[in-house]
Amino acid sequence: MAPEMTTDPYHSRTVDRWEIAPRPDPVLWGEGAGPLSPEQLVHYAEKGFVVCWRLFDEEEVGALAAAAAKARDAADPARDDVIAEASSSAIRSVFRVHRDGEMFERLSVDSRLAGAARQILGSDVYVHQSRINFKPGFDGRPFPWHSDFETWHIEDGMPRPRALSASVLLTDNIEQNGPLLVIPSSHRLYVRCVGETPENHFKESLVNQAYGVPTRAALVDLVDRGGIMSGTGPAGSVVFFDSNLMHGSGGNITPLPRNNVFLVYNSVDNAVVEPFGKRPRRPEFLAERRVDVVPT
Amino acid sequence: MAPEMTTDPYHSRTVDRWEIAPRPDPVLWGEGAGPLSPEQLVHYAEKGFVVCWRLFDEEEVGALAAAAAKARDAADPARDDVIAEASSSAIRSVFRVHRDGEMFERLSVDSRLAGAARQILGSDVYVHQSRINFKPGFDGRPFPWHSDFETWHIEDGMPRPRALSASVLLTDNIEQNGPLLVIPSSHRLYVRCVGETPENHFKESLVNQAYGVPTRAALVDLVDRGGIMSGTGPAGSVVFFDSNLMHGSGGNITPLPRNNVFLVYNSVDNAVVEPFGKRPRRPEFLAERRVDVVPT
Repeated sequence: MAPEMTTDPYHSRTVDRWEIAPRPDPVLWGEGAGPLSPEQLVHYAEKGFVVCWRLFDEEEVGALAAAAAKARDAADPARDDVIAEASSSAIRSVFRVHRDGEMFERLSVDSRLAGAARQILGSDVYVHQSRINFKPGFDGRPFPWHSDFETWHIEDGMPRPRALSASVLLTDNIEQNGPLLVIPSSHRLYVRCVGETPENHFKESLVNQAYGVPTRAALVDLVDRGGIMSGTGPAGSVVFFDSNLMHGSGGNITPLPRNNVFLVYNSVDNAVVEPFGKRPRRPEFLAERRVDVVPT
Repeated sequence: MAPEMTTDPYHSRTVDRWEIAPRPDPVLWGEGAGPLSPEQLVHYAEKGFVVCWRLFDEEEVGALAAAAAKARDAADPARDDVIAEASSSAIRSVFRVHRDGEMFERLSVDSRLAGAARQILGSDVYVHQSRINFKPGFDGRPFPWHSDFETWHIEDGMPRPRALSASVLLTDNIEQNGPLLVIPSSHRLYVRCVGETPENHFKESLVNQAYGVPTRAALVDLVDRGGIMSGTGPAGSVVFFDSNLMHGSGGNITPLPRNNVFLVYNSVDNAVVEPFGKRPRRPEFLAERRVDVVPT
């Protein structure tokens, strides 16, 4: 291990064997008021996530779902910020929707989302990344376990885990159609991954992640401690989860599509710098470098 | 459609377009006493399945799980009655374990299973098929939707849906590790599949089923009517389900393996004849032709 690595508490892909380190940073960064109740904040602090039931009403969800379908149908799979399935040309993700000048841009500054992010992160916030994830009925593919923050730190230069994802459910997310799976309380620990990061692997990694992947033994350890929970809820609900929470999702053999919009909020005091993995930056659709503060 | 087809209420793979037909036969064939409570029988009749919590205690499950691991490790993937994953040599199923002369043979005549089968089927019973299904942690594969009875009728010659599966959970089956998924009440309807049955496709079909597969539109219709439920429970629990219940299971990305033993009980008054699909018989490990009545 190079000597300078040891000064970064979140160094990763630097070790020959996985290890689980403590997280030196807090989970709740402020004590301000906001849309989340004290009980919801306690749940978030302890488990690393919270599901808020039906934050968006039926009419709003209908409009968002229609906009998502339009974005999918208009998406060009040849573009870097459009991700197709490995085994087909079906669109899996459309990135950077918070810059669409329309519905998702309005969504990204909605106080139900950004207000909760400010409350948890204890500062003003900006959108670090956004995307729509489509998991179609019958052939929706799984997504393996990972900590977002590990990747964002090593590959994008996010200094600390002072960021969160808000997943707005566009369809009912039930146990059976491939909802978000989380390892509760895993956000309080940091799993160092093994090995190095090849250059420009991001396109592949968004389909089949092969680097920055926690070792299976680490996942066994985390699940022994915390078990597994699902982020289920009816359409219009929102799952807020910590950037360092270990999560993934299963496939979808049901006829019921599972589509969500993700807005990732980062603290303005945590703007990205150069990647800690000493690699070239990834593209901006994965890591915004323009800090456009969401107005309160 | 050939004229003689119309005399079989369960004809299938005979039509150009899927259709959903009523089931002319009952679900509960008797009114005798047995291990299932009246409430459990009502649930079974209405939904097509029932989960009985911890019918086997920890010690029994431990012994069964050890015997299952031994059977898996001793299994020869080159044998027809041993099924490996399509993408690897991992053992997915070991068939005909009720003839092992040991633990699974004893299990197959256990009154907790065979007694419930007699109660539901209203007669003496015998074992039509048995198998251990292994769905390992991290890479357990999904199994697509199907009705067992459709296959058993067309390919094996089972006259009527007077049979059931008892799935003994060898590990905890939780929502997240690929439990049995069912479409409640779908057992009261019969989905005719499209197309013909090629000869000798059984080896392939046990890994990736391609014939006797319900059309997606039929599954959408059934789920619209009945929704989706999971057959979850702690190790030692048993899921009893009707031979015509539409079911499948998702993959398993969790570290927690999901292993179950299936015993299929058929009424002695419903012994298999020649396949209704006018094809050669499949091997006996898939459809017992020796009616060894389970002693009461």
